[in-house]
Amino acid sequence: MTKAEILEAYQRISSYIHKTPIATSASFNTLTGVEVFFKCENFQKVGAFKARGAINALLTLKEKHPSGVHAATHSSGNHAQALAWAAKQLGCRATIVMPSNSPKVKLDAVKGYGAEVVLCEPTLQAREETLAKVSEATGAVFVPPYNDERIITGAATCALEFLKDVPDLNAIIAPVGGGGLLAGTALSATYFSQGRTKVYAAEPTEADDAYQSFKSGKFVPSKNPNTIADGLKTSLGTINFPIIQKHVEDIFTVSESEIIESLIWVYERMKLVIEPSAAVTVAALQKNAERFKGQKVGVILSGGNVDLKHFGEWK
Amino acid sequence: MTKAEILEAYQRISSYIHKTPIATSASFNTLTGVEVFFKCENFQKVGAFKARGAINALLTLKEKHPSGVHAATHSSGNHAQALAWAAKQLGCRATIVMPSNSPKVKLDAVKGYGAEVVLCEPTLQAREETLAKVSEATGAVFVPPYNDERIITGAATCALEFLKDVPDLNAIIAPVGGGGLLAGTALSATYFSQGRTKVYAAEPTEADDAYQSFKSGKFVPSKNPNTIADGLKTSLGTINFPIIQKHVEDIFTVSESEIIESLIWVYERMKLVIEPSAAVTVAALQKNAERFKGQKVGVILSGGNVDLKHFGEWK
Repeated sequence: MTKAEILEAYQRISSYIHKTPIATSASFNTLTGVEVFFKCENFQKVGAFKARGAINALLTLKEKHPSGVHAATHSSGNHAQALAWAAKQLGCRATIVMPSNSPKVKLDAVKGYGAEVVLCEPTLQAREETLAKVSEATGAVFVPPYNDERIITGAATCALEFLKDVPDLNAIIAPVGGGGLLAGTALSATYFSQGRTKVYAAEPTEADDAYQSFKSGKFVPSKNPNTIADGLKTSLGTINFPIIQKHVEDIFTVSESEIIESLIWVYERMKLVIEPSAAVTVAALQKNAERFKGQKVGVILSGGNVDLKHFGEWK
Repeated sequence: MTKAEILEAYQRISSYIHKTPIATSASFNTLTGVEVFFKCENFQKVGAFKARGAINALLTLKEKHPSGVHAATHSSGNHAQALAWAAKQLGCRATIVMPSNSPKVKLDAVKGYGAEVVLCEPTLQAREETLAKVSEATGAVFVPPYNDERIITGAATCALEFLKDVPDLNAIIAPVGGGGLLAGTALSATYFSQGRTKVYAAEPTEADDAYQSFKSGKFVPSKNPNTIADGLKTSLGTINFPIIQKHVEDIFTVSESEIIESLIWVYERMKLVIEPSAAVTVAALQKNAERFKGQKVGVILSGGNVDLKHFGEWK
């Protein structure tokens, strides 16, 4: 994926997405000794950066098939909402295969955008099989959640925007699940900061397949991940992994309690609703603050879709 | 309080406070048929508009007593934090009398700013008596939470800023508890919009002393208010009431369930952490949307200090 492709993606999608604001916190800077800039993708359309990739993929499909597109995917989370939203914007049909244990707030959001929801057993195998059936029956085109060049270049526009607003960042920290956002961030930092901005990833220890793969140099699949950062349970994508190997500086892991602590800090002190997957980056920075002392660091708050009833359990 | 006094207050405090951003929501506009602008005082210093009045009062005191100021107040909530924060900024001493049942998050915040906390029984009488003792023993000067011209002109800077950013608002809705923010908002709308912008208030039905006073034209004190909007339990101030009578268009009341519903909507859809007192304005607009159809309406999200453990109960 070239610099030109990311710039083209940005031009393609920019009238559909929000140019998200950047938040700062004097208290967080004092706490960490780092000058931190938070890219608020929780304020993005559908409440997550995923809108960028989904609308980029659908617009690309529509350019090729102007007569009509029926998109489908399987996702328990933000990609489901994002594709449903993108389809609505472009007047396309969308079918989303979702595990039967998906959070109600996410099911409702997908249906609210007018997409068809097909429920399945909560296993990757059932999701893939159900999606295959949907595609066979309807001719719907699969739009994958992260292992896809259109999704990666779409996600890359987040760091492109970030670097336009804060060009002299020493580092950007992004969460890693499937690796679409991380790979896109790494590409944009390489192209648009001329390598001045190093990219780091943050991952839950309980779902550390990207960390294991990155450190060993071999693809280590995810094994029964169990983390509150539900957006980061997915295994690293095969397209994303080599990009991450080449362009990412390091991957930090954080515990469940560190994620919750950072999430509550952001709620209570910054008054921002973020989801646990986004808090993973904040936790990684707090844990590794010494490494970034005196630097300008960008943190991608990747999304804000969270079922608030959990706060009773977390507090 | 004159136009010049509000402008002076803004000049006095503007290097200490945040010029808070304005949020919009396409979904909320569609839902209500109103073009709504949300003034995010939840992002203000100490997480509430109260920072404006407190720093204005302390700066005014410091101008008169350059040798040193010891400020004191009684407050269960945001005014306590605001005065503690303001004292820290100016190197003043602050003593805060707080009821023993204050939320822990607010007690911690006050102490975190270095103020002295004196706990008392959770009655207005105990608060006033304890404060009197503190003042007698230490010579501390009482800075009232809302019934005070310095507090009102400080609070008025919020609407001044709001109208600078969105000059053609048809209306602004502010919450009313003691009435400092509402009176200040009404004065600023009168002075800075030449009366084009009408001001409305929102109040919980369970603490509707301002509504009762406004409708009857006679001061009706608050009677055992019981609302989750804890910032709005206070009785209307005697200085504020005549200003409100003269310059406020109407007062809307909302039920507890309407407050919670709007609060959750703002969390889930706008990703903003607001406190119940701020949600009261959102609920009032949703309930009276018909009245504002097609208009530009400003809503003051007055604060974001809330104990998140309650979400388990509310959801």
